[in-house]
Amino acid sequence: MRASELNQRKPVILKVGGSVITDKNNELAPQTQVMNRLAEEIQKANVKNLVIVHGGGSFGHPTAQKYAIKDGLKDDKQILGFAETHHVMTVLNGLFMDALVWHNIPAVSITPSSCMTTEMGRIKFFDETILKMLLRMGFLPVLYGDTILDEKLGFTILSGDQIVSHIARKFDAERIIIGVDVDGLYDADPKVAENAKMYSHLTLQELKKLQDKLGEPTACDVTGGMLGKMTELVPAIEQGIPVTIVNGTKQDYIYKALSGEKVEGTIIERE
Amino acid sequence: MRASELNQRKPVILKVGGSVITDKNNELAPQTQVMNRLAEEIQKANVKNLVIVHGGGSFGHPTAQKYAIKDGLKDDKQILGFAETHHVMTVLNGLFMDALVWHNIPAVSITPSSCMTTEMGRIKFFDETILKMLLRMGFLPVLYGDTILDEKLGFTILSGDQIVSHIARKFDAERIIIGVDVDGLYDADPKVAENAKMYSHLTLQELKKLQDKLGEPTACDVTGGMLGKMTELVPAIEQGIPVTIVNGTKQDYIYKALSGEKVEGTIIERE
Repeated sequence: MRASELNQRKPVILKVGGSVITDKNNELAPQTQVMNRLAEEIQKANVKNLVIVHGGGSFGHPTAQKYAIKDGLKDDKQILGFAETHHVMTVLNGLFMDALVWHNIPAVSITPSSCMTTEMGRIKFFDETILKMLLRMGFLPVLYGDTILDEKLGFTILSGDQIVSHIARKFDAERIIIGVDVDGLYDADPKVAENAKMYSHLTLQELKKLQDKLGEPTACDVTGGMLGKMTELVPAIEQGIPVTIVNGTKQDYIYKALSGEKVEGTIIERE
Repeated sequence: MRASELNQRKPVILKVGGSVITDKNNELAPQTQVMNRLAEEIQKANVKNLVIVHGGGSFGHPTAQKYAIKDGLKDDKQILGFAETHHVMTVLNGLFMDALVWHNIPAVSITPSSCMTTEMGRIKFFDETILKMLLRMGFLPVLYGDTILDEKLGFTILSGDQIVSHIARKFDAERIIIGVDVDGLYDADPKVAENAKMYSHLTLQELKKLQDKLGEPTACDVTGGMLGKMTELVPAIEQGIPVTIVNGTKQDYIYKALSGEKVEGTIIERE
């Protein structure tokens, strides 16, 4: 069987939260040891047709907030801010790519702002040809939350979560794995509420009931934290794509999730 | 007058040779001091509607050659080589972007492999929308020679020179400035032939007569050196876009060329 046929299976989408690969309480603080551990886990799991999307953490978010990039172009001073925010995101991506490539993973970055545009913050244009070609040839495409040109706002922020949901639906993904810095989905913010209770399994209906109660993030996050993540992912879950939330800061949790092994976390399915 | 109207003038394309921003005799050797000087010159010249394209130098070329990326996908071992070559090019681009952004230049990188494909090594697909939007908003788009997916070869190398020529023609550029590590175009390789004679002005007809005699590059260059550069640029010159070749390793030469000041170099025009 040719590699191209083997690769026709549905893709798996792994989101690596900015809170996992950066220290969100300090500006421009990469967690390079975590990146190296994740690269080992991804290499070991060896999942075919994997797509990775990572967040901005302490690279993208503080810079984007400083210049109010998400609000769109309102002031010429933001022009330099957009350039700076995009640049720091490419630096973070470069550090993560470094870890992946030097672990002999055929990872190839796709720069969202080079190939996508949005309208009022929602993906309007994205030609999937290159992503498809990369997967067919056996590469591991890596995308990330980025500054983006917007047809109405001039520019804005495109979150990694929106990219995950968009690609998962377009490619009818087998499943989505979300690596964050908490153990799963709680009924309150586990970093604030001591008695927050984690769910191990939720149906879409149960998730929708919970959405009003979900905790807000503790560090700055222009894309909305866990609540925003879940809102973005609902359309993918509705399409029948299961979502697994795991703690990416803990050794082998992402490895186990990728390999299909049992691991602590929250699984959300259509029914 | 609005900024968007001011920016309707024809773009200027600046090619920064890999031989200028890297040491081509050593692998992965950036010339960060040169990058900083160039950033100062570009900032000082303050040319509206500028597009920069840079080469691969000692980042792209040795890695691409090691894995024969230009020849296309022939062996699975090249898959990692493609990932590695693309990665080192993004690292070089990141270093140059660092110099530009920290000099308060609103530079935004466009990753060629994220938005272009080739067929038999020639650009087949490139949607210019994002480049156009960036220019209209007052950004300085920066592209670079990159690994690229090819519809026939699987993948190959897309040279910065081909990108320059493509964009110049599509956008009907005002002029092209080529910054290299020699003073201009010679009748022989000035690094080898002591009596090589530099031309200060050439017509297209004169250039075509000279092409057979031009010197070959002294360091590895998978995209073909000065001869390749000229071959790529001929269609742009035929379209009436003048090309100025200057020494980018010399202080203020690129600044003067950008500002339209008289500077030593070679000008090539249609007639």
